[in-house]
Amino acid sequence: MAITEERTRPETRMRYADASSRRITAGNAIDYAYRDLGVSGVPLVLLQHFRGNLDNWDPALVDALAADRRVVAFDNVGVAATSGTTPNTVEAMTHGAIAFIEAMSFERVDLLGFSIGSFVAQEIALIRPDLLRRVVLASSAPQGAAGMHGWAPEVIGAVGAPETTPEGYLSVFFAPTDTSREAGRQAAGRIFGGRTADRDEPTTWQTRQAQYDAVCAWGIPNHSLLQRVAAIGLPVFVAAGDRDPMILPRYSYLLAGLLPDARLKIYPDSAHGFLFQYHDKFAADVHAFLEESN
Amino acid sequence: MAITEERTRPETRMRYADASSRRITAGNAIDYAYRDLGVSGVPLVLLQHFRGNLDNWDPALVDALAADRRVVAFDNVGVAATSGTTPNTVEAMTHGAIAFIEAMSFERVDLLGFSIGSFVAQEIALIRPDLLRRVVLASSAPQGAAGMHGWAPEVIGAVGAPETTPEGYLSVFFAPTDTSREAGRQAAGRIFGGRTADRDEPTTWQTRQAQYDAVCAWGIPNHSLLQRVAAIGLPVFVAAGDRDPMILPRYSYLLAGLLPDARLKIYPDSAHGFLFQYHDKFAADVHAFLEESN
Repeated sequence: MAITEERTRPETRMRYADASSRRITAGNAIDYAYRDLGVSGVPLVLLQHFRGNLDNWDPALVDALAADRRVVAFDNVGVAATSGTTPNTVEAMTHGAIAFIEAMSFERVDLLGFSIGSFVAQEIALIRPDLLRRVVLASSAPQGAAGMHGWAPEVIGAVGAPETTPEGYLSVFFAPTDTSREAGRQAAGRIFGGRTADRDEPTTWQTRQAQYDAVCAWGIPNHSLLQRVAAIGLPVFVAAGDRDPMILPRYSYLLAGLLPDARLKIYPDSAHGFLFQYHDKFAADVHAFLEESN
Repeated sequence: MAITEERTRPETRMRYADASSRRITAGNAIDYAYRDLGVSGVPLVLLQHFRGNLDNWDPALVDALAADRRVVAFDNVGVAATSGTTPNTVEAMTHGAIAFIEAMSFERVDLLGFSIGSFVAQEIALIRPDLLRRVVLASSAPQGAAGMHGWAPEVIGAVGAPETTPEGYLSVFFAPTDTSREAGRQAAGRIFGGRTADRDEPTTWQTRQAQYDAVCAWGIPNHSLLQRVAAIGLPVFVAAGDRDPMILPRYSYLLAGLLPDARLKIYPDSAHGFLFQYHDKFAADVHAFLEESN
């Protein structure tokens, strides 16, 4: 494994849609795909949602975040252009994420975990707390919370099918209102139409199955496991859409109540993809949270 | 025990400051002091905070609530003008509250529990769920939540002393900002200066000690007890001030996350007495919640 200076230098003044897809080999011999833009002392590392690859981050959100800081998005083990097989537990995904962060030679990072990525973010905070400064959990839930196991049939039906559709995506990531659906169409336009060259590879059915196994295991109801996040002493920003059908807002309440040092914000008229719908506002909230102290 | 028609008829078109203090004897032989105003099918019963009596409800809040519905405030067993000795557990207070509601011949009520009154409200929902339609929990926390035992020294120092002061009251019930403190001075003016005749009796040191015992017992950390509120199937509105030093907002997050059917609202720039500071807005939110369905 060789990490060159060139490889780990971010692209400044670059739009996410134009940022090149790079590769780095980590200590676990996995070859990770990533994109890296913006400038700051502590980088913000993004952890992606179920079945998502590098292209599934709304470029408008990444650009808004990267205006203030270095932002690094990557495909975890087995996901899209990254080598290996997607593991089927959040814990194993966590070790995959830590290996990437180490390969990048980052001593300390901020995290933004989205959906299953927020489960991985919680787990990194528990397994390797010294690696982190601050954590953002978007559309999240604590392990073991009652009532979330497996997702509702219409949710897994919409985003879990072999071939996904724009309608299915919109129905989970955006609220059933004219305003939210319009925001969803715009976000989908940016995500699926904004970048033409150097797109990431699609995620596979193996990734879908392994990630869904991990999500289902995370959702096995176990009241005692709710205590785990009490060990996360880091400042955490918990955020959700008020009409998320995939991970209900009550799990964000629960998480923010269990965490010793959390802030909570619920965004109106939005769903699982509230952070894309409110990309500028959410980026400003993330910025305010990350700059509370340094 | 005789309950006359006259006794249980509310005072319509009456301001809380002018509502008479009435008495009713319940099946437990306790003689309860109460005030009763406004009109609706299902009355809203108020459950008061630590050391509070009938006069400690902000008249502006009660008037705003009573514009839409029948509102009944009462002193629980041993509190102020009600006979008996204040019990030292939330469970015993709960049976005292149920006895009052039964004495009033109410088949079904809505509850607004404030602080220790919100603990009693949770317990009524668990012990006698059929008595309730909807529940509002203001400045609340679930039994057993970690970190709230006994309150912070400055909080119990401010409101737990033998002789309380306006400064102590303001420091807990209102946030340390010009806007909130000014709202606090106005609320205190209404509470302590609005009503001249027929004021309630002050609460005693026995009440203070028994209520504080109950509060401390409620706050003994016990993760397994957090599951209790999962049995509350009723719609619940959880509300708090964002800077409450007595019961931190995170306990409202936790409660709203544990309850199966909760709405959550955190009011900005406010503390334990957010419902007095935002009396009109909070009454409107309570009204909207209570009218969601009937």
